[in-house]
Amino acid sequence: MKNILIIGAGLSATSLIQYLLKQSEKYSWNITVADMSMELAQKKINNHPHGTALRFNLKDLEQRTSEISAADIVVSMVPASMHIIVAKECLKFGKHLLTPSYVTSEMQALNDEAKNKGLSFLNELGVDPGIDHMSAMKIIDQIKQKGGKIQSFQSYCGGLVAPSCDNNPWNYKFTWNPRNVVLAGQGTAQFKENGHYKYIPYNKLFTHLTKTKIAGYGEFEVYPNRDSLQYCELYGIEDIPNIMRGTMRRPGYSEAWNVLIQLGCTDDSYTMKNSHLLSNRDYLASFLPDNEKSLKDRLSDYTGIDKNSDIMQKLEWLGLFSEEKTGIKSATPAVILQKILEKKWALDANDRDLLVMQHLFDFDLDGKRKRIISSMTYEGKDKEHTAMSYTVGTPLAIATKLLAIGKINISGVHIPTIPELYEPILYELEELGIRFIEEEKEL
Amino acid sequence: MKNILIIGAGLSATSLIQYLLKQSEKYSWNITVADMSMELAQKKINNHPHGTALRFNLKDLEQRTSEISAADIVVSMVPASMHIIVAKECLKFGKHLLTPSYVTSEMQALNDEAKNKGLSFLNELGVDPGIDHMSAMKIIDQIKQKGGKIQSFQSYCGGLVAPSCDNNPWNYKFTWNPRNVVLAGQGTAQFKENGHYKYIPYNKLFTHLTKTKIAGYGEFEVYPNRDSLQYCELYGIEDIPNIMRGTMRRPGYSEAWNVLIQLGCTDDSYTMKNSHLLSNRDYLASFLPDNEKSLKDRLSDYTGIDKNSDIMQKLEWLGLFSEEKTGIKSATPAVILQKILEKKWALDANDRDLLVMQHLFDFDLDGKRKRIISSMTYEGKDKEHTAMSYTVGTPLAIATKLLAIGKINISGVHIPTIPELYEPILYELEELGIRFIEEEKEL
Repeated sequence: MKNILIIGAGLSATSLIQYLLKQSEKYSWNITVADMSMELAQKKINNHPHGTALRFNLKDLEQRTSEISAADIVVSMVPASMHIIVAKECLKFGKHLLTPSYVTSEMQALNDEAKNKGLSFLNELGVDPGIDHMSAMKIIDQIKQKGGKIQSFQSYCGGLVAPSCDNNPWNYKFTWNPRNVVLAGQGTAQFKENGHYKYIPYNKLFTHLTKTKIAGYGEFEVYPNRDSLQYCELYGIEDIPNIMRGTMRRPGYSEAWNVLIQLGCTDDSYTMKNSHLLSNRDYLASFLPDNEKSLKDRLSDYTGIDKNSDIMQKLEWLGLFSEEKTGIKSATPAVILQKILEKKWALDANDRDLLVMQHLFDFDLDGKRKRIISSMTYEGKDKEHTAMSYTVGTPLAIATKLLAIGKINISGVHIPTIPELYEPILYELEELGIRFIEEEKEL
Repeated sequence: MKNILIIGAGLSATSLIQYLLKQSEKYSWNITVADMSMELAQKKINNHPHGTALRFNLKDLEQRTSEISAADIVVSMVPASMHIIVAKECLKFGKHLLTPSYVTSEMQALNDEAKNKGLSFLNELGVDPGIDHMSAMKIIDQIKQKGGKIQSFQSYCGGLVAPSCDNNPWNYKFTWNPRNVVLAGQGTAQFKENGHYKYIPYNKLFTHLTKTKIAGYGEFEVYPNRDSLQYCELYGIEDIPNIMRGTMRRPGYSEAWNVLIQLGCTDDSYTMKNSHLLSNRDYLASFLPDNEKSLKDRLSDYTGIDKNSDIMQKLEWLGLFSEEKTGIKSATPAVILQKILEKKWALDANDRDLLVMQHLFDFDLDGKRKRIISSMTYEGKDKEHTAMSYTVGTPLAIATKLLAIGKINISGVHIPTIPELYEPILYELEELGIRFIEEEKEL
């Protein structure tokens, strides 16, 4: 397998491309990077002798057919909803496929055919989903093998800013898709506590916090993700009485963010009248009763937050009381909030982001209740070379290599919850600086 | 026009059918009542010499064609989404149509063709929408004619229980579709205050209350409806600085209901695991953190409501702390809540419901700021003959008569915001006991 086609050359493909180009010398691969933008593809190839840049339009059937049929392995870095187009071509021409994205029911439906043709369709190979699966399953399988019974599984992940670059009152900057951060948690969080299913609606989510620590990085708070229950089946821990996956933020973030939720600032379901004419003050006032008091007093009266509190300081720092305008026509509250935040939460050129992940396993073994805490931290290099893009691209790159050199030999649609995938990938991730620190203690 | 076809013989068609059968003697009409249930149609006709009952299936093209083509006027009382099927047949065969429901964009699209064929397609002829349009537009047009400038329009409506039958701590019983009551207000309320657009999300809606009184009926509280802004255009008051439409409840209802919203009990977007096995206590506990305290203490801690408060008493009275089970499989939180409420909020056989409506208009005239308050109350007779069904069916019946005897002569798709419709209908509604009391005062 010599010909590797990477479709999509965006931010999260950088580390992937660099890794594969580096390995291409050893294995004599041809790496083709295909993107809508020829310039971007060329930049990522950077004249590497084993690399070819290609202007590529996924909707062009002829081009799609000819490029995919010429490859041995296809790595799809296109927007998540479009992987299925690539997948169907791979099936047609008998090519292996890798993606960083969640397995949709459409993708899962290709399992039998991929299996019959001996093709590997490997998904969820980024960081979350991806590294979370691998690092959790390694320990779950270990505990099971020793005869332990897992009583609780908590799994946390967060994209934050490195301590040395952490210089705003929210202790947060955007290191990934800002829209996803603004809309995070909408719906209902579902998890298990003491054997009981629990349901926490969006309006309560950011008050439902767990505290945790990571050595060398201090304290974090965690709010529950929407979808913890599906991991019972995914990880083979159906009977577990406690399971919760959550998102990590620095302490104090959630109670301030919750004010924006209570006001309705994160609502993406309707457009505000004359949104392009609204100053930030007007925007804020749209969610508050009208009266003679100052805007800050009205906010304080309506939400119950003290005028001199840290929360109020966070909101003020965002510029919500300013006369500035975002100027966006037909904008939803969430779109305006995102624009306000993008100005304040942008990474500076030399800012380094921080990716944190932590799993906590409580289990009974030999008559004792024990806890394993497994933690990973990774700091980016700068605004371009982020921890987020490195941790998304690197496991995918390793899996691609392992597949190309015949070290991965499984057919069908898979995610890295199985030792055949997580063992070799975690091993090499550790060499590349993405490592988990484990502590074990009795409770 | 002799042949009147009424499609749908449900609860809200009762008064309509009775009215038209009574008038049929004077005008020699033939009234056909068509329903999926022959028994129901026969019951409503009750052997009246001018009435014919018909087993009718709207999906049966042949029957639909033959019955509609044989009528002069069709009154559609089918579920709202199905009026369009009836409307298209009416257009095809050149028949007039009346419905109690909101004009959808599909219905509005038939306007030109109906106009060209000289057909009246009259909609929103119930109570809300219906009587609210008529009674508000009468006063809006009067104020405009006198040269007044309207500064504020508030319009409230509620389906409640008559004071003499009001015997539960919520001062509320179901008098209409319970599901709509459980889901009421989801989304974002939009209105105008002092010239500013205001947006109140669901999680704040039931705390955003206005108080009002109706003579002889005491106090009410009002929470904003979702859609007040569209009434600016509908009522020709685009520049009005204050507009809010709202739903009336008895004082104390909203703050208790808000607890159910905060917990997530009204969520209809996901199904609860093992929902059929949950007791009411289990159901409540699903939304609360797990700890050693009593369920009531946990509820009190989580929501901040006092254990001995009226709110807690309301929640307890619903049976939320009981071991009873609703037993519904794959139920959403909202479906279980509805089942719990239906047991407690059912009308007894002799219970009489109460329909209340109130408009408040502030306007400037001759250099003075004035207020008109227009209020309507109507009490039902019993559980079957409700104020709700009477006030829905009666204006529709009057409009049908007026159309049949040539007193209404407008073609195209209309709602009763125009004097040609609201004047004669309001006049006869008053004779039939549905009357507004107006007060005017200087502010």
